[in-house]
Amino acid sequence: MMSKVLIVGSGLVGCLLAVLLHKRGHAVTLCERRADPRRAGYVGGRSINLALSDRGLLALRMAGLADDVAAVSIPLPGRLVHGANQQTSFFNYGLNGEAIHSVSRGGLNIRLLDIIDSLGIDIRYEHRCHEVRLAVNEADFVDASGAVHTLHGDVILGCDGAYSAVRGALQKTDRFEYSQSYLPHGYKELAIEAGPDGSARLDRNALHIWPRQSYMLIALPNLDNSFTCTLFFPFEGEPSFASLQAVDDAEAFFARVFPSAHALMPDFREQWNNNPVSSLITVRCEPWGATTANGQVLLLGDAAHAIVPFFGQGMNAGFEDARVLASLLDEHGQDWSVASKEFQRMRKPHADAIATLALDNFVEMRDLVQDPTFQLKKRIEAAVARACPGQFVPSYTMVTFRPDLSYATALARARAQDVILQQLMGHPSVVADPTSAAHEALYRTMAASLPPLQPDMR
Amino acid sequence: MMSKVLIVGSGLVGCLLAVLLHKRGHAVTLCERRADPRRAGYVGGRSINLALSDRGLLALRMAGLADDVAAVSIPLPGRLVHGANQQTSFFNYGLNGEAIHSVSRGGLNIRLLDIIDSLGIDIRYEHRCHEVRLAVNEADFVDASGAVHTLHGDVILGCDGAYSAVRGALQKTDRFEYSQSYLPHGYKELAIEAGPDGSARLDRNALHIWPRQSYMLIALPNLDNSFTCTLFFPFEGEPSFASLQAVDDAEAFFARVFPSAHALMPDFREQWNNNPVSSLITVRCEPWGATTANGQVLLLGDAAHAIVPFFGQGMNAGFEDARVLASLLDEHGQDWSVASKEFQRMRKPHADAIATLALDNFVEMRDLVQDPTFQLKKRIEAAVARACPGQFVPSYTMVTFRPDLSYATALARARAQDVILQQLMGHPSVVADPTSAAHEALYRTMAASLPPLQPDMR
Repeated sequence: MMSKVLIVGSGLVGCLLAVLLHKRGHAVTLCERRADPRRAGYVGGRSINLALSDRGLLALRMAGLADDVAAVSIPLPGRLVHGANQQTSFFNYGLNGEAIHSVSRGGLNIRLLDIIDSLGIDIRYEHRCHEVRLAVNEADFVDASGAVHTLHGDVILGCDGAYSAVRGALQKTDRFEYSQSYLPHGYKELAIEAGPDGSARLDRNALHIWPRQSYMLIALPNLDNSFTCTLFFPFEGEPSFASLQAVDDAEAFFARVFPSAHALMPDFREQWNNNPVSSLITVRCEPWGATTANGQVLLLGDAAHAIVPFFGQGMNAGFEDARVLASLLDEHGQDWSVASKEFQRMRKPHADAIATLALDNFVEMRDLVQDPTFQLKKRIEAAVARACPGQFVPSYTMVTFRPDLSYATALARARAQDVILQQLMGHPSVVADPTSAAHEALYRTMAASLPPLQPDMR
Repeated sequence: MMSKVLIVGSGLVGCLLAVLLHKRGHAVTLCERRADPRRAGYVGGRSINLALSDRGLLALRMAGLADDVAAVSIPLPGRLVHGANQQTSFFNYGLNGEAIHSVSRGGLNIRLLDIIDSLGIDIRYEHRCHEVRLAVNEADFVDASGAVHTLHGDVILGCDGAYSAVRGALQKTDRFEYSQSYLPHGYKELAIEAGPDGSARLDRNALHIWPRQSYMLIALPNLDNSFTCTLFFPFEGEPSFASLQAVDDAEAFFARVFPSAHALMPDFREQWNNNPVSSLITVRCEPWGATTANGQVLLLGDAAHAIVPFFGQGMNAGFEDARVLASLLDEHGQDWSVASKEFQRMRKPHADAIATLALDNFVEMRDLVQDPTFQLKKRIEAAVARACPGQFVPSYTMVTFRPDLSYATALARARAQDVILQQLMGHPSVVADPTSAAHEALYRTMAASLPPLQPDMR
């Protein structure tokens, strides 16, 4: 069954989905609010760099795009933590050298739009979705001149992000569960340019993090040897964006708490004044779609489940949505009514789980990474994981490098494993030397108390 | 400081607020989406009967309207429970004969509109709020002909209910916390008319309740000796509105589980077919307002905190909002910027508390009222309360008859008292005879472990 599919939003998820559906014979039209970024310059959304990991890669591979993306990404095998005392320490992300991949949102989006064009997929820029009429599966788009274009789709897919217009239409229907919640922290981007000789001024093989308890700075490398930094900082209180309105105060503060980063930003004052402060939203809703007399409406990615960026999973979760939906369509003979129902049933618990994991990881990144108790727990976690491969898997690994495990399984398993870690932290001999071979039998016995860890994603 | 106040919505809260503000010298304009109900007939919102209790009465008294309302209400000193075995039992609401008051939403609204007119307050019907421009304190209203009327207020008050248009404008601002959630139960109204001789066919001095665990029927008396019944029933599952689509099935079911009510509804089939099923929303949001360059925008009542009806507090909480805002204005020399900030700070925790209490009370009404353990606990609660007046106060009493205690205090105190009740249910002699004078010393000792119960509302 070939369907006419109208995708609202040509961001990362919309583009990937367009490719996957086009390859399955559906007639795809993409509508994008902004102008073509290759002509107009990329104007974001959030231009924050993204960490592509295995869930995202698996989805790109399904679309045949993994090589295209590898060409524009930089592998990061670990975090380089910049302590308050100016010492740095490196922490691997995985036990076996696994890496996440730094990509620029704009660069990746443009690469995907090139592919959309090469496949001849219909795409319309400067089409802002103004209204979706669910009952008749139609949407009105307003162009730059103010003219209204009405388009119909057997299927309308809302890939239009955290402030989705398609979700706005669903929200007006009865019994739509919805919540939006913001962190008390906002973020501001800052850049570290390449050195005068074009070389990188920080190690390019790591995600850099300056954790400072109630706030933090991170930096991810770009292909041109610059780094995109993001300061996650309270809106109100002391210190906060509100308390550092004056650029003199801001610079004095920044130089004091992040001296190593400040030294690499000669244009700090300009950047602080020019770059906006953005907020961090979590959106939960249900249902993600509607079956109408004329077809289907369905939300994917941030439109269905916007999350905070602290697990680096926003894009990965959206790409996984696209992969799962394509798999379900294949399984059910491209029958959208079955696939979209099944999609919502399967994906909603995983979206809720990664939202929780992402909120929890903010605490880990800014508070705990520096904390000796936390570091001990991570060493014990690694030691138990080495003794019990496949049975005791660090939570970061499950979320980031194990796309065969769902987010919900990763969250539940992480909580069960945490109970074991808490118990082990009460063993003085384990605390004294977590990696001693003498503890392996204990580790294996305790890990064996958990049920086998079964892959649950297809 | 006299202000130009634009009130959106002339429902119960909007009308009461208009009277309170008019009497304080503010220039009030009321805009209402619907036509004048005295000319057009009252077409609801929810025409569900309302239970006015002491918080609402205190606010009406402040406005000088308590007598007007007493004339159109019927006092109910307790619940009459209709068991599955056709037996009935009566439970007083208070220990000292306190009563709640059955009023018709439509009748009360019309009484308030008469008063609005008698005071010469400017009111505009068929003015649907289409857009609120926060930055300039203006709102556009669309009339029946489609014409747009733009009105300005130094203060714009959103009293426009659970689906508030004013809240819609606030929701588009950054960092607005918002959630809407629905119960899996809906409701359908049914009527029991007066008998052929004009007499009431049920006892008029009680709120009637037919609790049936997963669902329930209630009935409240009207001035004309009819009763308004409401069936709270699951949307899906077995049994549910979905499973009883056919009126034959519905009638067979209703006659079986509510025979005493069914016998009083000769027109059951017509009513079942004609009356819609409505949903039950809880809305939480923050902030409730905005300070703009040109003044204030503020939400009150359901627009700020829509709750489910199971504690009979929706209207009472909205009236209490109006009373508290008027008090704060008096306290701060009619300075809206101070009063509206203080109002939000004070009221938000109480709105959250009554939302929780209302959801909890649904379980009590449909599941527990019939349960012997629950009935025992209520008997012990009453006995402890008699032994310790002012120190141990039943939760229903705190919420309903003690407007000097905030909802948040009522919720916290109810939870602390519940721990004591749980302990007492482990004493065999208490269980055997809760009202024995022999237990009074024990009751007093246990109640004395709680801090004194201090009034915290002004």
